[in-house]
Amino acid sequence: MARKFNVAVFGATGAVGREMVKVLDYRNFPINTIQLYASENSAGKRARLRNGELVAGRNGLRERNYFGTMQDLHDGGISIQSADSADMRNIDIALLAISRSWSSANAERMAEHCLVIDNSSAFRYRDDIPLVIPEVNPDAVCDARLIANPNCTTAIAALPLWQLHRNFGGLTRVSIATYQAASGAGNKGTTELREGTLAALEGRDYDYKVFQHPLAFNVIPHIDEFQENDYTREEMKVVWETRKIFGDISPRISCTCARVPVERVHSEDISIETGLPFSLEKAVNLFEAAYGIKVCDSPLDNLYPMPLTAAGKYDVEVGRIRRDLASIDPERSLKFWVSGDQLLKGAALNAVQIAEIAAGIYK
Amino acid sequence: MARKFNVAVFGATGAVGREMVKVLDYRNFPINTIQLYASENSAGKRARLRNGELVAGRNGLRERNYFGTMQDLHDGGISIQSADSADMRNIDIALLAISRSWSSANAERMAEHCLVIDNSSAFRYRDDIPLVIPEVNPDAVCDARLIANPNCTTAIAALPLWQLHRNFGGLTRVSIATYQAASGAGNKGTTELREGTLAALEGRDYDYKVFQHPLAFNVIPHIDEFQENDYTREEMKVVWETRKIFGDISPRISCTCARVPVERVHSEDISIETGLPFSLEKAVNLFEAAYGIKVCDSPLDNLYPMPLTAAGKYDVEVGRIRRDLASIDPERSLKFWVSGDQLLKGAALNAVQIAEIAAGIYK
Repeated sequence: MARKFNVAVFGATGAVGREMVKVLDYRNFPINTIQLYASENSAGKRARLRNGELVAGRNGLRERNYFGTMQDLHDGGISIQSADSADMRNIDIALLAISRSWSSANAERMAEHCLVIDNSSAFRYRDDIPLVIPEVNPDAVCDARLIANPNCTTAIAALPLWQLHRNFGGLTRVSIATYQAASGAGNKGTTELREGTLAALEGRDYDYKVFQHPLAFNVIPHIDEFQENDYTREEMKVVWETRKIFGDISPRISCTCARVPVERVHSEDISIETGLPFSLEKAVNLFEAAYGIKVCDSPLDNLYPMPLTAAGKYDVEVGRIRRDLASIDPERSLKFWVSGDQLLKGAALNAVQIAEIAAGIYK
Repeated sequence: MARKFNVAVFGATGAVGREMVKVLDYRNFPINTIQLYASENSAGKRARLRNGELVAGRNGLRERNYFGTMQDLHDGGISIQSADSADMRNIDIALLAISRSWSSANAERMAEHCLVIDNSSAFRYRDDIPLVIPEVNPDAVCDARLIANPNCTTAIAALPLWQLHRNFGGLTRVSIATYQAASGAGNKGTTELREGTLAALEGRDYDYKVFQHPLAFNVIPHIDEFQENDYTREEMKVVWETRKIFGDISPRISCTCARVPVERVHSEDISIETGLPFSLEKAVNLFEAAYGIKVCDSPLDNLYPMPLTAAGKYDVEVGRIRRDLASIDPERSLKFWVSGDQLLKGAALNAVQIAEIAAGIYK
């Protein structure tokens, strides 16, 4: 009989953590026990899956049954414990969707006892820790005990970029402009967008705390901290992580990251050049054959990737595929548009896929 | 005494037409009489300027005084006439912000009697008709009787692009991704965004007619019709018009145009390469010295161009100025972000500035 695992989700009530629980459930991950951990306010509550959504209510601690099964989550629910109280000896696989500082302080110690897959940026740039997108570099998982999950914008772009990189003599230039959703800033980001938008429609002021400026009916070209080179950290993550995951520092990559008034799904306008010429047809065929990509490219039917259609989907939508008219050699160029659910392929789904590789069940 | 003009605005109650009346007023254009024309529903109403906004109410035709002064517009208002009823012999300058088909059918005949400045795309690509951005090619106005006003996305980008093109050995590559506002599709676009957003927040369906898909909390990478090369007409306008206005077909230009849930102001992420190397400082100095540009670039103060700050402003905001890390020669590259009010510099302001050139009062 195949092995079953004691799986723990840290940050289980956050935007990504909730999706991790749902994805584990939907993909029938072989779970013996599931444990939910969270920081601050959520610990002590009781969580259950209702209509496929993880909801957290009161009075969890009274019963103290924080080792549940997926079925328990569908029935009465299980208690959420404080992340700091976790006993790693009871965990086989820990999925971390908690703060970067918590991961920095705890993940390596945890990894002495169990497999840790960390969604924060704490370990992504350490040479001794693999950064993995299963469709790109599954072998990097190997026997690592601590694995970093990539930035959402990077993961979504990487699926089509990898097809071009590996098949057409390597990417030489990659230029990206993003249209990123509020939920990239967590549940609070979504709440601010909705409340702020309603306030704007009613002509009321609204006090934004998550975003630097009002996001309702606005675009904010600023995500994460500015670096010395005047790119934001979010923009540089795409550069650093794409190169590390592809195992190739040669692509020249630049990115502008902007927050738009969208609840869920990051979109990206991507222009690339490759080392070798290729046919448009070949590129489209590669995208269509690639796992994790859905080609949505029928302009005359008004069909192209959008947040509206990509939300909640595991596949990244790719469309608007055409030559880049700004390229000096159009035959080595491509311009396309990607929309991907940044909470799924950009975070939770990718983390669970890594767990599947480690568990020997990734298909 | 300086000459005063009989000015007529066609499409006066549309998103651009309203702004034309406001801009004429604000810039004290030397007006003898002002006449407002519109198609369909608005003709027959009475229009006045109230708190700087042009509003149209009932019962205009009863008084038939459709030759008013700016003061009349501030006081009791003047009547709006049907565009088809206009007598060109009473007009010195006609500003057209009406449909492309109406312009196609009427503008050349009108130009036999008066100066016509057309905001539609009907004449922009005719070799014998100037396409003018006053900060770039004011001399093209010359003694033309019919002048085309550029596409909004083109006009906003052109101000900073021109500084780079003329000073650094010409632009060789220009790559643009846009974040375009709902009002680019007219007043109905704004209404759909607001009504559709409220419906989305309340969980109701909403029937979109202007946009191809729901715009609330969505991004639509599709503006205007698709062309044979899989670019949209909106995207190709930027290519065609920038080259014509700059009088130089050598820049390789490509663009992706996307509609975002913003009421007003187009933003653009722009990456360029030039023929000659230049210092970042020189580029910033040129932007700061240029008429029509406001440099907003203090990242650590969270200061960069946004719809929120650029709305209602004559200047185009330019910021996020940095080298393009994807360029093979960073010293010849720049990446920056532009937000500009597409109803003003992208349309009404540019048209009035052209009229000012023709009237000999452009500064």
